[in-house]
Amino acid sequence: MKDIFAYINKHSDLYVKKLQTLCRQPSVAAQEWGMEETAAMVAAMLGELGARVRMIPTAGYPVVYGELPGESRKSLLLYDHYDVQPPEPLDQWEHEPFGAEITDGRIWARGVADNKGNLVARLCAADAWLKVRGRLPLTLKYVFEGEEEIGSPSLAGFAEDYHDLYHADGAIWEAGYKDAGGRVQVTLGCKGICYVELRAHGANIDLHSANAAIVPSPVWRLVWALQTLKGPDERILIDGFYDDVRPPSPRDRELVAALNFQAEEMKERLGFDHFLREASGEQAKADMLFQPTCNIAGIQAGYTGRGSKTVLPHTAMCKIDFRLVPNQSHEKVLRLLREHLDRHGFADIEVIDLHGEDPARTDPSDPLVGAVLGAAARVYARPPQLLPTMSGTGPMYLLCQRWGIPVVGTGVGNVASRAHAPNENILVEDYIEGIKHMAAIFQAFAATEES
Amino acid sequence: MKDIFAYINKHSDLYVKKLQTLCRQPSVAAQEWGMEETAAMVAAMLGELGARVRMIPTAGYPVVYGELPGESRKSLLLYDHYDVQPPEPLDQWEHEPFGAEITDGRIWARGVADNKGNLVARLCAADAWLKVRGRLPLTLKYVFEGEEEIGSPSLAGFAEDYHDLYHADGAIWEAGYKDAGGRVQVTLGCKGICYVELRAHGANIDLHSANAAIVPSPVWRLVWALQTLKGPDERILIDGFYDDVRPPSPRDRELVAALNFQAEEMKERLGFDHFLREASGEQAKADMLFQPTCNIAGIQAGYTGRGSKTVLPHTAMCKIDFRLVPNQSHEKVLRLLREHLDRHGFADIEVIDLHGEDPARTDPSDPLVGAVLGAAARVYARPPQLLPTMSGTGPMYLLCQRWGIPVVGTGVGNVASRAHAPNENILVEDYIEGIKHMAAIFQAFAATEES
Repeated sequence: MKDIFAYINKHSDLYVKKLQTLCRQPSVAAQEWGMEETAAMVAAMLGELGARVRMIPTAGYPVVYGELPGESRKSLLLYDHYDVQPPEPLDQWEHEPFGAEITDGRIWARGVADNKGNLVARLCAADAWLKVRGRLPLTLKYVFEGEEEIGSPSLAGFAEDYHDLYHADGAIWEAGYKDAGGRVQVTLGCKGICYVELRAHGANIDLHSANAAIVPSPVWRLVWALQTLKGPDERILIDGFYDDVRPPSPRDRELVAALNFQAEEMKERLGFDHFLREASGEQAKADMLFQPTCNIAGIQAGYTGRGSKTVLPHTAMCKIDFRLVPNQSHEKVLRLLREHLDRHGFADIEVIDLHGEDPARTDPSDPLVGAVLGAAARVYARPPQLLPTMSGTGPMYLLCQRWGIPVVGTGVGNVASRAHAPNENILVEDYIEGIKHMAAIFQAFAATEES
Repeated sequence: MKDIFAYINKHSDLYVKKLQTLCRQPSVAAQEWGMEETAAMVAAMLGELGARVRMIPTAGYPVVYGELPGESRKSLLLYDHYDVQPPEPLDQWEHEPFGAEITDGRIWARGVADNKGNLVARLCAADAWLKVRGRLPLTLKYVFEGEEEIGSPSLAGFAEDYHDLYHADGAIWEAGYKDAGGRVQVTLGCKGICYVELRAHGANIDLHSANAAIVPSPVWRLVWALQTLKGPDERILIDGFYDDVRPPSPRDRELVAALNFQAEEMKERLGFDHFLREASGEQAKADMLFQPTCNIAGIQAGYTGRGSKTVLPHTAMCKIDFRLVPNQSHEKVLRLLREHLDRHGFADIEVIDLHGEDPARTDPSDPLVGAVLGAAARVYARPPQLLPTMSGTGPMYLLCQRWGIPVVGTGVGNVASRAHAPNENILVEDYIEGIKHMAAIFQAFAATEES
């Protein structure tokens, strides 16, 4: 790999310029801003590599698909997204959000960490291989979607229709971040989600609260329904909720034991004094990855302004996100929730299905994992951290695991990258290392035995 | 009384004009609109009667006080307010809110029912007495406050400082309404209130909801705390909450049995299918007047907009109004609530005292009640409805019962008067009858034995 790494070093300015060009093109799906231009731009970047490029229409923004053939029979899927979060709040940026300015060794731009830096690094890694060796060691399949930051509403349909096209022996997920110790994180999955809105209804208009003596209150209905879902011991009380939960394996536990987690620092920084279930720092670290959740993301009813207004609200709502772990499924949790409410006398409470994703997990013994870790050892000074799963959620299962594709997440961000926040940035050095890591992954994965 | 009634009939146009003049003067305390002008206007109206008038300063708008001497040693307090609700929403008015236009036998104006119609009727009743007889049969003490529609924040202080000045053998409360059957309602009290805001705190900022696996949620804290306050059987679970509740007397029950209450019509109109505790219509009628309540007037936390946002809120709040019945007190309920939360492990939940009033009740056998009912019989075609209490709340206790003054509420409004709503109105006929009723009350109460 020395020849390829040397080429990458020599052309690092060019690779940084490619990234700056993409970052200077706004692509905010939520604001319908610059999406067509950006899709065309990433298609052209794939074209420059000599890839077979397809602009695949969806119900929303198109998926840009590119395929580059390789020497072996092995293939690798690279999943990224060309959309970014909105740049707001603008007054908190110290750099132009779409300026891609470089200062202090960092590139500043909305989307540079999440995930244009990764998208371009993965193109540059192929470019270096092709320029140096004339041929890739394995087939690359690029899937660039345009709706990740708005919840990937069209991706399930795309996967359903095109999984034969993009099928591969493994996949690299869109992003990754170095931890506070400068160790690159390599992740093997994500939690699923079941996001619902509950609505309770009382009279047909808000009433003077004197009527609370005789007229049913939807706010109380909602409170009573909610407290049947989870008690103060944090145990989720929906019958069957835990039935499909696969406990972490001994290997999962080993991996978690090896992770950095600054428990006391976290509590101090965020201003709370204990973890749920009075967990130790070690236990909290494991809970973060392995516990499913039932979180009230929002609740609203009646008058919540200043002072006192005496009203009996006629409606009440809340939003709940359940984070799911293997082998739970969002469809089953949705059904269990409905059955639970019915059984506990809350058939009147409406459940609106807002979003669902199944959890995803790749086996740590999968050859892809070995390839990614082995490649990291060739590039990074410090050993990578291997996480059995992320604590968050993405459309990993529907794109990959559902079709039998193992997935590993890694990328060019770091703990101070401020993804989704003002002053998003990556280190130029991490970006160049990320290109090398990806180039080394191509080599290492191509060399693995069939799994 | 025939001479006085005849005088009122003869001068009804003049009395209507007086009311129109006051209604055309905006006096919206919440919007600091026209308050000084209105205080001066009602002071001048008292002056025209020959009353000794005082403009008594408070922390807010002044109390206009007027006293007219009478023949007997008896005295009667008349409590009204010169402020009105804001006229908004303006686009729903079919009449000028401060135009006092007369159409279809109705006077249309913000505040005409609540309570300028009563205020002026009580002045006109004295005017008729003085013009016809030269002298009143009893001493009248007018207390006109300017902050009733914003919760009477200065009235407790006024009462504390001036109760010797305004002390009387009885009091007429500010408003009253004819029911759907055209029977004037005479009320003997009101519920108290304890209005609080509860606040729960989690981390110091909103977090990605992945953290819900380990970081405490203030929304769940609030839900769990709330469900300890009241269960689905509607029983309030705060220790000692019911200890001071005086059950309705046999006479109270008789009075309620005689009241009109369109139970089925109410359910249909307001779109709910059962009363709380599965009460019958008869029981609901009694509950409305005799049950204390624990109502969630508002609740808010996190994200409540469209779609799904995965956030662990860092704070949650709700507003609760407890309606209180004799002999509960808002201070004790506030203390019991705090103790209850502490005892149930919710010492972290903040309780903010937003408003309190004690319940008020006048004995149905009080001579004042007999005088008001007897006077009604001389004026109204249909017998009055006697309510042991209103279901709502006012500063009755702090102004009157606390100082041993019995109170009866009655007035010139009707069931379609739309107090607090657009197109507020009263019938001209009810207004003139109300003047006569008040004139007859003066006579009847002056003639009662010392109680």
